[in-house]
Amino acid sequence: MAIIISGKNAVLKTLKANRKTFELYITKNHKSDALDLARSKSIKIKEVDKPFLEGMAGHSNQGIAAKVENYQLLTIEEALKKEQKNKVFLMLDQIEDPHNLGAILRSCDAFNVDAVIIPKRRSASLNQTVAKVSTGAIEHVDVVEVTNLNQTIDTLKQNGFWIVGTMMETEQTIHDIDVDTNLCVVIGNEGKGMSRLVTKNCDYTVKIPMGGHVNSLNASVSTAIVLYEIFHKKGM
Amino acid sequence: MAIIISGKNAVLKTLKANRKTFELYITKNHKSDALDLARSKSIKIKEVDKPFLEGMAGHSNQGIAAKVENYQLLTIEEALKKEQKNKVFLMLDQIEDPHNLGAILRSCDAFNVDAVIIPKRRSASLNQTVAKVSTGAIEHVDVVEVTNLNQTIDTLKQNGFWIVGTMMETEQTIHDIDVDTNLCVVIGNEGKGMSRLVTKNCDYTVKIPMGGHVNSLNASVSTAIVLYEIFHKKGM
Repeated sequence: MAIIISGKNAVLKTLKANRKTFELYITKNHKSDALDLARSKSIKIKEVDKPFLEGMAGHSNQGIAAKVENYQLLTIEEALKKEQKNKVFLMLDQIEDPHNLGAILRSCDAFNVDAVIIPKRRSASLNQTVAKVSTGAIEHVDVVEVTNLNQTIDTLKQNGFWIVGTMMETEQTIHDIDVDTNLCVVIGNEGKGMSRLVTKNCDYTVKIPMGGHVNSLNASVSTAIVLYEIFHKKGM
Repeated sequence: MAIIISGKNAVLKTLKANRKTFELYITKNHKSDALDLARSKSIKIKEVDKPFLEGMAGHSNQGIAAKVENYQLLTIEEALKKEQKNKVFLMLDQIEDPHNLGAILRSCDAFNVDAVIIPKRRSASLNQTVAKVSTGAIEHVDVVEVTNLNQTIDTLKQNGFWIVGTMMETEQTIHDIDVDTNLCVVIGNEGKGMSRLVTKNCDYTVKIPMGGHVNSLNASVSTAIVLYEIFHKKGM
């Protein structure tokens, strides 16, 4: 399976990560580091019309796109086999907006998350928008796709993971997270939060302390703050 | 001046904040709490065609839009007059993406920022996208629009503010921010970071400690982490 990546920075990051690239598409007179790198790697380069590229890769393509091998997903068993002690996993309970997923992958890379678990259905998946917004982080974060989040929670518990849900209506805060263990943080849907059953299956839930009137944050923002806090508590 | 707000939640928040509302637009058979509230406030309601509403308010309008009074901007002098001790201001040095600005306003509300300073030119301004993404936070955050960021930095310094820039290439981290004083945090442009002169005018600069490969975060994400850290250090 192949997907299309576009934009100078995203294509450059993809090429640098040595992802298998089938073909590069550029508009006339296009110049970029990505193009130079593709030339040095002897990748097949095709000059195309602007409308053709827009049809293929959308408006903000900056005159360059690449057809590359699709992102490899891990199974939960593969993610569990990693040798890292006190793993940090992130479970996304139906994040729908690909911009949020892309920004979340960027934060996962920055704060050393060992695996991101997303459900096969009712979730944004790894497409070109996600790849672009992640600005290359998608190449460095292990993503696990599962059919059933609650079965996965069972598997994680059997493997010594603590499941930490996030919500507004709870007493403990992110400062109370015990980071000296295997940990799976759960983030809920942008509008509805975590689903009922996932909430029930969490070992405990935490909130981000905040003031103000609106009492909620953007999903990618709250994810980043939780991950940052864990990263910081681990002394990294 | 009037602007258009659309979507059930954004319109509801706007009505609840008692913003002057000139007219409400709904598609046939629309039902929402926002509509009920508008009725109870005797606001003029107009039933319109779906294409008309899309032309006025874009695709994701959920069948409701309102023409409301534009957001009031403060002058820097008005923002300085606030009685809050140890104020926290946020200066956005050319944030271009309205989605980022909306998410940032949401974080400013959550973490008690006293004023957000944006430049008149080369910046996202308070439009309907920003209002929508902010999910009502725009009603609670004071925004100052200035013609020249560097002159504003001078004014702030004369009023006892410390100017704290954010960038990746610096030694001190956000843990080193002294919060027992008036503080203005500066966040740079999504791609280019802070401008050269603004960087020079900062009293000191800090970074967010992180690992990973990509070494940068989404602009609204990094803003939120800095604001969260300050909020937390202030013991709130």
